[in-house]
Parts: sequence; C-alpha cells; structure tokens
Amino acid sequence: MKLQPLSNRVFIEAIEAEHETASGIVLPKEGQEKPQMGKVIAVGPGKLDDSGKRMKMNVKIGDTVLYKKYGPDEIELEGKKYLVADEEDIVAIIYN
Amino acid sequence: MKLQPLSNRVFIEAIEAEHETASGIVLPKEGQEKPQMGKVIAVGPGKLDDSGKRMKMNVKIGDTVLYKKYGPDEIELEGKKYLVADEEDIVAIIYN
Amino acid sequence: MKLQPLSNRVFIEAIEAEHETASGIVLPKEGQEKPQMGKVIAVGPGKLDDSGKRMKMNVKIGDTVLYKKYGPDEIELEGKKYLVADEEDIVAIIYN
Amino acid sequence: MKLQPLSNRVFIEAIEAEHETASGIVLPKEGQEKPQMGKVIAVGPGKLDDSGKRMKMNVKIGDTVLYKKYGPDEIELEGKKYLVADEEDIVAIIYN
Amino acid sequence: MKLQPLSNRVFIEAIEAEHETASGIVLPKEGQEKPQMGKVIAVGPGKLDDSGKRMKMNVKIGDTVLYKKYGPDEIELEGKKYLVADEEDIVAIIYN
Amino acid sequence: MKLQPLSNRVFIEAIEAEHETASGIVLPKEGQEKPQMGKVIAVGPGKLDDSGKRMKMNVKIGDTVLYKKYGPDEIELEGKKYLVADEEDIVAIIYN
Amino acid sequence: MKLQPLSNRVFIEAIEAEHETASGIVLPKEGQEKPQMGKVIAVGPGKLDDSGKRMKMNVKIGDTVLYKKYGPDEIELEGKKYLVADEEDIVAIIYN
Repeated sequence: MKLQPLSNRVFIEAIEAEHETASGIVLPKEGQEKPQMGKVIAVGPGKLDDSGKRMKMNVKIGDTVLYKKYGPDEIELEGKKYLVADEEDIVAIIYN
Repeated sequence: MKLQPLSNRVFIEAIEAEHETASGIVLPKEGQEKPQMGKVIAVGPGKLDDSGKRMKMNVKIGDTVLYKKYGPDEIELEGKKYLVADEEDIVAIIYN
Repeated sequence: MKLQPLSNRVFIEAIEAEHETASGIVLPKEGQEKPQMGKVIAVGPGKLDDSGKRMKMNVKIGDTVLYKKYGPDEIELEGKKYLVADEEDIVAIIYN
Repeated sequence: MKLQPLSNRVFIEAIEAEHETASGIVLPKEGQEKPQMGKVIAVGPGKLDDSGKRMKMNVKIGDTVLYKKYGPDEIELEGKKYLVADEEDIVAIIYN
Repeated sequence: MKLQPLSNRVFIEAIEAEHETASGIVLPKEGQEKPQMGKVIAVGPGKLDDSGKRMKMNVKIGDTVLYKKYGPDEIELEGKKYLVADEEDIVAIIYN
Repeated sequence: MKLQPLSNRVFIEAIEAEHETASGIVLPKEGQEKPQMGKVIAVGPGKLDDSGKRMKMNVKIGDTVLYKKYGPDEIELEGKKYLVADEEDIVAIIYN
Repeated sequence: MKLQPLSNRVFIEAIEAEHETASGIVLPKEGQEKPQMGKVIAVGPGKLDDSGKRMKMNVKIGDTVLYKKYGPDEIELEGKKYLVADEEDIVAIIYN
C-alpha cells in the first residue's frame, strides 16, 4: 500500500511520551494522551499559491516534528493510528 | 442516470470498516460509524481560480481516497448512500 | 409573473422523496423532510468576479440538481414552496 | 424628507402576506410575521470594488423584490417600518 | 477640545425618539432605548485601500444619518454620550 | 528599560475617569472599570501592507486617544498596568 | 538537539513573575499563572508573502519579548515548558 497525501498534507506517526527518551526529550505529562511530537511518514506535493504555482514543502519523510495539539486529525490505516496535519499545523523540525 | 458534479465536488462511496480488509487495511473502530476511506465515483471539472481558469483536479474516478471525518456531506441516490466532498476534504490517495 | 434571480442565485423546486422514482432514484429517508434533489426553475446571470466580469452559470432552467441539505433558503411564491440556492450550494447535475 | 442610502444599501417596504394578492402571489404562512417580498423605495449608488470603481446596482426604485428572511435590518421612518438590505440580501426581482 | 477620528470612523450624536419630530420623523418604539438616527459631529479622513490610497468619506459633519442598531460603539465625552461608527455602519443620509 | 512595540501595536496608559477632568472631559460611569481614554506611551513602526511596504502610523507618543472598550489587551510592566492596542482599536485623537 | 521552527513561529521561555525583577519589571499578579514576558529561544525563517517572498522576522534569539496572554501554545521539550507563538502574538521587544 502506498499513501500519496494531497496538497500540503503531512502524515505523522506520533511519538508517545516516555518521560525520558534516548535523546533526552520529555513530552507533556497532563493525561499523557496528546503527544505533540512525531515522525513524518508521508508528505503532499505542496499547496498551490494564488497564481497556481506549487509551494515547496518544508518537511520531508523521516523528519521529527513538533505539531499543534489540536490541529491534526487522527486516522487509522492497517491497524495503526496516524495524524494528518496541514503543513501549518507543524511548528518545528527537531534535529538530534 | 449520469451524475455530473460541479466545481471541485467529488462523490465517494465509503468503504465500510472490516477490521482487516483484503489489502490489510483496518479502519477506525470507535463506534464503527464513520469510515474515512472510500472509492471515488464521480468528479467535478475543478474550481475556477481568481483569474477564471479552471484548476486541475487531483483525484479521478476509481481512486481509493482518505477523507476528513467531518468534511463531506451524505447524500442518497438510487437507494445507496454517497459522500459529497470538496476536493480539500480529501487528504490522500491510496495505491495498492 | 416573471422571476429574475440576481447574481448567482438559483430557484429550485424540490422533488419529494418517493422511495423509488420513475428513473429509479431514491432520496434520503431520515424523517422524509429534507429532499436534496430538485428541478431548476430560474437562474441568475452569474456573480461578478474581482475584475467585474460576470462568471458563467453552470446550471440552466430545467436541470435536475442535487444540493446541500442546509444551504438553500425556503421561499413561497404563488402558493408553492421553492428553494433559493447560491450556485455553490448545488453539488451536481443529474442526467437521465 | 429625502433618503439617500450609502454604498449598496437598498430600502424596502415589505408587502404583507395576504394569502392571495392581486397578482396571485401568496407569501409564507408560518406565523405570518416575516414577509420576504417588498417594494424598493430607495437605492444606494453601489459599492466600490477593490480598484475603487463603483459597482452598478441591479435593482431600482419601484422594483418588487424577494429578499433573504434574516438578511435585512428593520428601521422606522416617519411612522412606517422599512427594511434596509445590502444588495446581496436581495435574491430576485419579480415582474408582473 | 478637538476630536480627530482616525480612518473611517464617524462620531454621531443620537437623536432621541420623540414619536413625531419637527420634520415628521418617528423613530422605533420598542423599548425606546436604541435610536438609529443621529447627527454627525466628527469624521475621520477615510480608510486606506489596498494600494494605500485614502478612500473618500461619504458623510460630513452636520449630516443627519441612519445607522445600524448594533454597529456603533458608545463613548462618553465631556458628559455627553456619542456613538462611534465605522462608515459601513451608516446606511443612509437624510435630507429635509 | 526601553519598550519597542512591533507592527502597528500601541501601548497606552489609561486615564482613569474622574467625572470632570481639567479639560472638562467626563468618562463613562457604568461600573467605572473600563476607561476608553489614555495617553500613548509607545508606538510600533507600522504594519506591512500586501506589497511589503510599511504603513505609516497615525498616532505618536504623547497623544491622548480614545479606544474601543473591548479591543486592547491589558499588560503589567514595572508595577503599572498598560493597554496594548492594535492601531485599528484607536478611534480618535483628542487635542486640547 | 536542535530546534528549527517553521514559518514565522517563535519559541519562547516564559519569565515567571517575581513581583520585582532585577530590572525592576513586575508581571501581572492575578493568579500568577500567565506570565506575558519571555526570552526568545528559537525563531523561524519567516512567513511567505502572497508573491512567495519570505518576510523578515522582527525578533531574534535572546530577545526579551512581551506576548499576548492567550496567543501562544504551550509545548514541553526535554523536561521544560516553552511557548510557541506566531510572530503576530508578540507585541513588543524589551531592551534594558
């Protein structure tokens, strides 16, 4: 199965909070239910601007990203949950 | 009967969740009531941009698509339920 | 009496659900109160775009159309109820 | 007293529902409180478009018009109630 | 004290309803609390359009105007109440 | 400490209502909690328009201004409360 | 770990209210829970304007800034809480 996002959509696999990850990153603790960090697994070709030109995406497959808590939608594929975000819902890329 | 969607409208036949489909795809389980995957059965010619040019559609009849849970409207035709989505409500195309 | 819609307004006479019409079309059953199919009885000249040019309408008198359940307004004229829709509220044309 | 509407404002005198008017027109009956047909009594010069040009009005004094139920505001002048509508609130002109 | 409104702001002194004014004008009676007619006492220089040019105001000091019931804000200056309206809140000028 | 507002932000020190000020100005009395007049203490460089040019500000430090009751945000600095307004929240400048 | 904000996003470390800081700054006291001053720790490259050009950011790493109380989102990284603001949520830069 191949997944091709449209427009500026980004599919993300959330990284569950572990309180202390390998890279020392700790995610929010309130309820543990809403991580805001994940791995990009599929990226759309970019939105069209007003003149019909495609705008370059700023994230790529494999990037670790931070995203808005209430921006992305949840979707389930082949038994796993993913997040579907508009690129504007992604606030930062994290490099180790 | 022929169905001609207007603008960027897409008619979709939802694929009901079966927990494990032929291609191994599993859809959301909460209540089982809102699938987010379907088959495209009719596609509009595309929206007009600000300068009056028609914008190309990114989906075509027969595509398997993922769509936003609360975007498309339901409509019934010849005894079957369909979804009417704006193209922006479609987040990805799935290829097997 | 002649009715001249303004801008992109479309007057529609709803086709009441009959469960099985001549052309085999069945409309939604929940409550039977909100058909989404109708006959176009009057059409405006089209909206003006940003540069002041009139945009062509995509429906014409006599067309059978599908429309959004909660888009059009109801209006009564000469004892009959009609729907007044913006053209964007019409999602498809049906040809037999 | 002379009334000069600004921009695309239209002053309308509502035609109360009579169930069967001279021209055979019948207005909505639910509660009888909100007619949607009226006579235009004053018209603004038109809105300015983005480039500062005045856009032509499509209704004129004396026209019988249909308008959106909840669009126009009520105003009282010299003991009579009028409706103040933006031109977009007017959906059609009726000719006898 | 001199009052210089900014942009397209208009300061208005409301004319209280008297049921029958000198010019024969009668204002709304429901509750008597919200007149919709007033005298313009100060006018801004006009809004800037998208290209940075100032748009001409259509009302001037001394004009008797009708305004939207819920558009303008109330403000008190030197013991008197005034209304501050955007020019779009003014629906018509009245000439005697 | 120097305060440099960004964009079209204006910092204002509210003038508390005294019922009769030196210049004869009286402010709203309902609850006495929300003055709408103040002294400008810091001004941003102006917003950028669509073509990237900075738009000139219409108020300057020291101006006495009237502002919308519910527009500006409150902020506390060095023990004193200030209001932070977008320039559009300022409705007029007052000269004595 | 390196954090690269996208677009016009700014990561801020809030400065907790101490009632009297070294520079004499006092922050709001109501509930003590929502400081509005912080240190910029990461800055995006800037938003793209309508013509696709990147707009210059007005804040830089290390700046002490004032921000809107309800604008920025909270996020936790490596055990510390940060705020993620759009640049428009930042109202001023403070220099000592």
